[in-house]
Amino acid sequence: MTENTFMEEFVDVLRKAPKVALFSHISPDGDCIGSMLAIGLALQKMGKEVVYYNPNPIPGNLGFLPGSRCISQILPNPQPKTLLFVDCTDLGRVNLAKSDIHGNSTILNLDHHISNLNFGDINWVDARASAVGELALTLINLLGVEIDLDIAVNLYTAIVTDSGCFQYSNTTAQTHRLTAKLLDLGIDLASIHHNIFDQKPIAQVKLLQCALAGLEMYAEGQLALLTLSLEDFQRSGAEQELSDGLVNHVRSIAGVESAVLLKEVGPLEVKVGLRSNLWLDVNKIAAQFGGGGHKRAAGCTLKIPLTEAKISIIGAIEEALRSGRNN
Amino acid sequence: MTENTFMEEFVDVLRKAPKVALFSHISPDGDCIGSMLAIGLALQKMGKEVVYYNPNPIPGNLGFLPGSRCISQILPNPQPKTLLFVDCTDLGRVNLAKSDIHGNSTILNLDHHISNLNFGDINWVDARASAVGELALTLINLLGVEIDLDIAVNLYTAIVTDSGCFQYSNTTAQTHRLTAKLLDLGIDLASIHHNIFDQKPIAQVKLLQCALAGLEMYAEGQLALLTLSLEDFQRSGAEQELSDGLVNHVRSIAGVESAVLLKEVGPLEVKVGLRSNLWLDVNKIAAQFGGGGHKRAAGCTLKIPLTEAKISIIGAIEEALRSGRNN
Repeated sequence: MTENTFMEEFVDVLRKAPKVALFSHISPDGDCIGSMLAIGLALQKMGKEVVYYNPNPIPGNLGFLPGSRCISQILPNPQPKTLLFVDCTDLGRVNLAKSDIHGNSTILNLDHHISNLNFGDINWVDARASAVGELALTLINLLGVEIDLDIAVNLYTAIVTDSGCFQYSNTTAQTHRLTAKLLDLGIDLASIHHNIFDQKPIAQVKLLQCALAGLEMYAEGQLALLTLSLEDFQRSGAEQELSDGLVNHVRSIAGVESAVLLKEVGPLEVKVGLRSNLWLDVNKIAAQFGGGGHKRAAGCTLKIPLTEAKISIIGAIEEALRSGRNN
Repeated sequence: MTENTFMEEFVDVLRKAPKVALFSHISPDGDCIGSMLAIGLALQKMGKEVVYYNPNPIPGNLGFLPGSRCISQILPNPQPKTLLFVDCTDLGRVNLAKSDIHGNSTILNLDHHISNLNFGDINWVDARASAVGELALTLINLLGVEIDLDIAVNLYTAIVTDSGCFQYSNTTAQTHRLTAKLLDLGIDLASIHHNIFDQKPIAQVKLLQCALAGLEMYAEGQLALLTLSLEDFQRSGAEQELSDGLVNHVRSIAGVESAVLLKEVGPLEVKVGLRSNLWLDVNKIAAQFGGGGHKRAAGCTLKIPLTEAKISIIGAIEEALRSGRNN
């Protein structure tokens, strides 16, 4: 199927559907929620009945998104014939199996992950997009719906979160061109950014302080290591997931090639987050410990005490830093 | 003069000049350096002789910018007839006085500050631009010079730094449209961002840890206060200016309207940085202590001990938070 054919079919199915169910993935983020809501609001403007589903509660910082209160954690019943999955590589990302889908349904699959399993009847999967929000904008244009402020706020949120404020390398000229169109509509950047990014729990700041207090540098400053013990989580009152992103505070130190966060999640269980900047393949290092990921971001879990995990990980990275460039 | 007239005149002066001296401001940033280099490289491509001046050393994280090694801290001598000032509100921003400029010179003034004094013979001042980089791109297009990779890297750096990665409210649709054109040329975002943003001195991270260790919350969580003593600077090995931006780590805590950093710079001298998120006018608060700035970012200096300064500032902000919304 050529690019245009499947896009036309995708749009055609939506045009003909009186009712559409939209699905987005577990651990929801700005892209899946913003894109889902933008498309749903557009379909509603076309006079269609729309139901929104996500298996998890919507993160507090996305509660400002127009339409977010319509998202249900209960599967639509009865199930509409037209099902649109947003930002999902497979049905498992929505905690569903093929048997959960009625036989006469049409599954529309809109995604930007290269690992997408093409599980839909029509698959619009474009890994060049920084966010599904880019594809959603194109889809809404093809549907002929005028983009209003509510839709624009959702699309902007989708793009700005998944592109890391236009910093990640998935950002393209097209990302900026589409964003320009959203800004033309007069969305309030200051308010959107405040809603998305300025909602940090104080426990997260305390956890950062704990982590930085234990900063250690190895390999002549090429390796920055942070450690969070069970006690640190107790003292700061932070949940485990609040440690996401902490490692970036030391990844950005001058001269650092690799940054690591060791997180004690149980007496004999340590989660390790590995990052690199320019050349070190941390996926290979994670694989040594049964983990995996990408070249610049990977993780693994060690079922040993924190102090031992630390020694093992430091050893593996120092070795990789010594020999890595020659491989 | 209409917009087009002065732009044409501006371009005309540059076209006719065999030699141009470019000036950028003290405490140089990505916008003034990137814009200056982009214009200079374009003029060089036109076959002109170009000299670059900045009163201060170029920050280490901008050393990767193509052409940066040509910037001199020595004033051009002999002084060319055509002088182009980039991102400078007045001659004082380059540590110059009117008497330093030869009588037969033509001063070109390219800036985006609303406070610009229009000190040039031709003033291209456009406060709608998020960065002078936007104006520089337009200028280079008007000069008819093809934008190559080196020029694009400089312009992108100018825009991404002064727009705060497209997050500041000075970012417009035009900012994104111009950026798209630079990305079309194939600049390497990952490498540029690493060069600009991942060059933090380790002392800055230690200073952040010191600051967060002393985090205090007031006014039912609306005020977040950080304090850095002389001892904190000694212990972390950080210079005073490394505290810039630290306050944003707590400004982004949920529920915070105002965030403050108190910095002891001498035994009886405390510098205060004030920020607000949505409504509090911190310029007014700074003014109470003889300082000033903007509504959302202001500062003042108190010539009293740190502990006393803290009490005064907390009192003033608590009062403003209580009564402010009613004014």
